[in-house]
Amino acid sequence: MNNKYPDTLQKLIDCFEGLPGVGKKTAERYALYVFMHMKEEEIVDFSNALLSLHKDIHICSSCGNISEHELCSICSDTTRNHRQILVVESIKDLFTLERVGEYKGIYHVLNGSISFTKGIGIDDLNIEPLVNKVKNNEVSEIILATNATIEGETTAKYLNELLKQYDVKVTRIAHGLPVGGDISYLDEMTLIKAFEGRREY
Amino acid sequence: MNNKYPDTLQKLIDCFEGLPGVGKKTAERYALYVFMHMKEEEIVDFSNALLSLHKDIHICSSCGNISEHELCSICSDTTRNHRQILVVESIKDLFTLERVGEYKGIYHVLNGSISFTKGIGIDDLNIEPLVNKVKNNEVSEIILATNATIEGETTAKYLNELLKQYDVKVTRIAHGLPVGGDISYLDEMTLIKAFEGRREY
Repeated sequence: MNNKYPDTLQKLIDCFEGLPGVGKKTAERYALYVFMHMKEEEIVDFSNALLSLHKDIHICSSCGNISEHELCSICSDTTRNHRQILVVESIKDLFTLERVGEYKGIYHVLNGSISFTKGIGIDDLNIEPLVNKVKNNEVSEIILATNATIEGETTAKYLNELLKQYDVKVTRIAHGLPVGGDISYLDEMTLIKAFEGRREY
Repeated sequence: MNNKYPDTLQKLIDCFEGLPGVGKKTAERYALYVFMHMKEEEIVDFSNALLSLHKDIHICSSCGNISEHELCSICSDTTRNHRQILVVESIKDLFTLERVGEYKGIYHVLNGSISFTKGIGIDDLNIEPLVNKVKNNEVSEIILATNATIEGETTAKYLNELLKQYDVKVTRIAHGLPVGGDISYLDEMTLIKAFEGRREY
């Protein structure tokens, strides 16, 4: 039978298929595109970019953001309000909010949300460092900016319950987020409104 | 400003954005997924798969298919009918047809189709080796299996005009291909019918 791609190409197809939302057809399309249309030096760049990732980038030890140093550029910025923490599900959400440029506090990345269907519980999320900051009285406001999905709302509710025993104001980003929506796909105006309209839990 | 990804990550995002149909948001999603969820050895494999591509795979000197040797496994298969050539636009189409397992001749990959909007002319396509085979009396039937798009039909029409001066039967794959459809997304039965229902040009 000749209906198989050469091993090397199949290997690359498998790699692309490992990416989120990429099926067999799309993976084939990507791999064949790389082979047929990318220049040799572009492929080398691509390969190096993959290898450099974990060499050059780390997770910020304070907030969970990506960083080229131990502390990320936001956590090491002394002009920002370190007593105000905006809690997001993912680094992508952090960057989406940061692009708006309105927020001057710091962040905390949960790295997911509570999901019964995906089997993601509180122990799988980056919660403890946040609670420690609150316990140590380092925080005056926690803004919960998890997505408006079931998982995001569940996570926000859980964090509110967990944090209300401490002397900290807990708010939830609210207006403008359509139910079922994903923060990283929102426009800037909606995000600004959602941010301004936050209410106390 | 902190609204930029670290350079290494941005580089990877740019690489993903170079793939067909991948926009900024999707490229970010892919790159962050690689960073957050792929294991170190998976990333190394991915990187190596990219680098190995042009080392291990070549274009078959006879038909334009991908191959680990100078001649692809189809062209070097003596049990196949080398006097029947199925002409496709892309390697992906070749593999889609080959998976059906019905066809026992050989292939010819044009590597594109005539497109006025994209500025792709006959000189950009892999046509000459096909004509040479016909001229040398090596072929008894050419089956045109370009897509049922304007570009595919234009290319089929052009090839028919070009080849009718020679002593070769030129047919066009026909029934079952929905207008505007793409061969690589069709199911096997439709492909078999399209193949059986081919008519003489």
